[in-house]
Amino acid sequence: MAKNITYSILACFIFIINSITSVQIVEKRELECALSENVRENIANYAQVTNDIIDYFVKGPLKGKTWNSLSEFVDTFGNRLSGTKNLENSIDYMIEKTRENNIKNVYTEEVEVPYWLRGEEYALLMKPRVKNLPMLGLGYSVATPPDGIIANAIVVKSFDELKSLPDAEVANKIVVYDEAYVNYGVTVKYRSKGASEAAKKGAVGALIRSVTPFSMNTPHTGMQSYDANVTKIPVAAITHEDADLLWRLQERGKEIVIKMKMSATLSTKTSRNTIIDTEGTTKKDKVVIVSGHIDSWDVGDGSMDDGGGAFISWMAQIALNQMNLRPKRTLRTILWTAEELGLVGSREYGKRHRNETENLNFVMESDGGVFQPLGLIYSGSKTGECMIKEILKLFSSINATQIQTQGEPGPDIGMWTRDGIPGGGLLNEASKYFWYHHSEGDRLNVMDSDVLDLAAAFWTAFSYIVADIDSDIPRSP
Amino acid sequence: MAKNITYSILACFIFIINSITSVQIVEKRELECALSENVRENIANYAQVTNDIIDYFVKGPLKGKTWNSLSEFVDTFGNRLSGTKNLENSIDYMIEKTRENNIKNVYTEEVEVPYWLRGEEYALLMKPRVKNLPMLGLGYSVATPPDGIIANAIVVKSFDELKSLPDAEVANKIVVYDEAYVNYGVTVKYRSKGASEAAKKGAVGALIRSVTPFSMNTPHTGMQSYDANVTKIPVAAITHEDADLLWRLQERGKEIVIKMKMSATLSTKTSRNTIIDTEGTTKKDKVVIVSGHIDSWDVGDGSMDDGGGAFISWMAQIALNQMNLRPKRTLRTILWTAEELGLVGSREYGKRHRNETENLNFVMESDGGVFQPLGLIYSGSKTGECMIKEILKLFSSINATQIQTQGEPGPDIGMWTRDGIPGGGLLNEASKYFWYHHSEGDRLNVMDSDVLDLAAAFWTAFSYIVADIDSDIPRSP
Repeated sequence: MAKNITYSILACFIFIINSITSVQIVEKRELECALSENVRENIANYAQVTNDIIDYFVKGPLKGKTWNSLSEFVDTFGNRLSGTKNLENSIDYMIEKTRENNIKNVYTEEVEVPYWLRGEEYALLMKPRVKNLPMLGLGYSVATPPDGIIANAIVVKSFDELKSLPDAEVANKIVVYDEAYVNYGVTVKYRSKGASEAAKKGAVGALIRSVTPFSMNTPHTGMQSYDANVTKIPVAAITHEDADLLWRLQERGKEIVIKMKMSATLSTKTSRNTIIDTEGTTKKDKVVIVSGHIDSWDVGDGSMDDGGGAFISWMAQIALNQMNLRPKRTLRTILWTAEELGLVGSREYGKRHRNETENLNFVMESDGGVFQPLGLIYSGSKTGECMIKEILKLFSSINATQIQTQGEPGPDIGMWTRDGIPGGGLLNEASKYFWYHHSEGDRLNVMDSDVLDLAAAFWTAFSYIVADIDSDIPRSP
Repeated sequence: MAKNITYSILACFIFIINSITSVQIVEKRELECALSENVRENIANYAQVTNDIIDYFVKGPLKGKTWNSLSEFVDTFGNRLSGTKNLENSIDYMIEKTRENNIKNVYTEEVEVPYWLRGEEYALLMKPRVKNLPMLGLGYSVATPPDGIIANAIVVKSFDELKSLPDAEVANKIVVYDEAYVNYGVTVKYRSKGASEAAKKGAVGALIRSVTPFSMNTPHTGMQSYDANVTKIPVAAITHEDADLLWRLQERGKEIVIKMKMSATLSTKTSRNTIIDTEGTTKKDKVVIVSGHIDSWDVGDGSMDDGGGAFISWMAQIALNQMNLRPKRTLRTILWTAEELGLVGSREYGKRHRNETENLNFVMESDGGVFQPLGLIYSGSKTGECMIKEILKLFSSINATQIQTQGEPGPDIGMWTRDGIPGGGLLNEASKYFWYHHSEGDRLNVMDSDVLDLAAAFWTAFSYIVADIDSDIPRSP
């Protein structure tokens, strides 16, 4: 499983590097688009239904419904960690809510998922003065011994600095990474590999500066993975403020002693991907997937990561059902499980449905925030790109016409988009996404009802069009 | 003492209402200024020394020194609550550092101060689901019984809503205020009077939505005071996110049960105001005060509130001493103690030095953030205003020429400015001040070294000029 996890993390990071941090870098290259008149006309014919869907969300029966549904959900369950009964209850709730909305075609598929439970954990500065260091253990970290670890700390600014130190200067110490935040994609390596790199030098524990551009003395958790053949040492994220403090103390020649206590346990549980189908009218074997993940980290309430993405994907089914819109292809909403612990739900789906990949026509995931929608992060063929651009023109009334062709659209759909299957992620004004990401700050207050309406309208209309359009979005060769 | 405290809180709030929230409202009214040619010339003659002082901080020997000094201070002591040994140690440290800088005229005056120690405290949502509610008890709150209070909660949006409820609906409950944040001055009444208003209706505890425009699930503490003849009930601040959650749960008809546990104790200790004098050359009995407060709340490290204000006031002495600049009047730096618990240090100073008030020529305090300096918050006579405006022209090279005449310049100097003694506070770009205020987010990371240099330069030069100028800044009649 370790190899798979490493691969998943890597995929996830590539996605995030590209999609989030470059959200403003909308491709400037002009593509020569020679779509046939038929295709253009076919797309143009969706102008009315696009506007109808937008109106239905923005001033019609669904106005405010996405935020209301999300708020009832997160208020009822809070965060939803992979492996917990609470996540399973929240999945049952979504099934029930789907049926209450007169959608019968909802079912689940079981997935074996990791259950990483942090338990009691803390970090304490003991010298030069006693101070609590607010922290969050990183996913898959091992525990400390029951009495914790008390050790001298050594603070470094980078892996290069760590590597340049004699092993004797690091051995038996806690390595503190006080790395600068460049962007998520660049800086997250300290979270994912900080423990292993420290262990290679003989360290007994590692603390990283939380991977975020903004801090209110807030720790941010996330996954990490251990290299093979390296001692697994406990690892946690501390705040910007404290990592910087520790570095200054070291610069002044102070002896730094830290106590780390972690009690994390790892086991396996059964969870479920949740699948809702609107069966296609004339091409029902062809499938368009629209998705988000229902699990979250065990902090905040996961409204942003990925409550918003899951709910706009769910609302697509609710809206089309209420509006009696049934596309030619099957439109499949999937609420992935255990994304945060390594894309576990989507990988299982990929394995189980391997034989149906041929009929997978377009894959969508929103997992980079649901702020003001701007358009689509697209991955796929050039001809497909031309079609997508043409479709996006239909969203000029809400200014969601941009296409970004750099990066992967979504972590859970990466296994397909990397294979040339066309796919899209929600391009949105996500400049503050990492302020809240994986922290107690990921709460419903981050989400705006009107913005959710716009995003859900875009997501619904876009997925409907690609599921209904006459010609498939062509795959990459 | 209660009456005095109430008065102090009020004064402090009036200051903050006016100075912070209206920082952008620089008075537009044009004053007819008919300063004599002598006065104009006298002020203009300070152009060279102003530039010298600015250069000395910005590119000379003191470049970076304010931030460095502040960082060593807060890294050594962390936060400095009134009544703690840590605050007294930090005062001793400042005395020592002053002497190390070859300034001998540093002394302290004892003050009896409150020691409000929060001890163990928490709030727990028990129904409809179990959830920790991050909280901070409010200053002077009483404790709960040792086993805590378990009670139904009732959520209100305002005092008016609370007052409109039958007593029976509030009695024996915990009142949760989910008030909207308008601005600090308007909204802080829920912090200061939330407990008393709830107690009047028979409540057994109160929780307020933290008084801040921005939240990362962060509670913000601060002072409150009990009305006379009202049962003192425990009161704490919870986060925006949780207050809003509780309100939504109530709107959905859920029964809300909360456990509050607080162990706060209140006693009295001895602390000290720290005073550093540069004796005037020709008018040594006349005094200009330049000040900030050295105590802080018991969260974060108090770098912003009020480490920055204290340190730019301290740096004024360091800079003038190094530059051999000695004004005609005595320039007195004061690091107030126990400001946060009700202006306790400054009130004691006022009493003790009552007979010298006649010679108090100008009073300055910085306690509203040390962000980019913009000019001065001025209180005093119209003629004085004309002189201040003329002095501020000298700061055009650093764009700190604005005068704001609304509001009080500083809480600790309010007893004088309200009596017509002219005074000034640092006008600065404080739009994010309340993001961090009284929270764990008030850390050194909020402060910028270059900005501190500019502010310290402004503060030093300005205080030097008003202490050296030929004619006194006239008092209000």
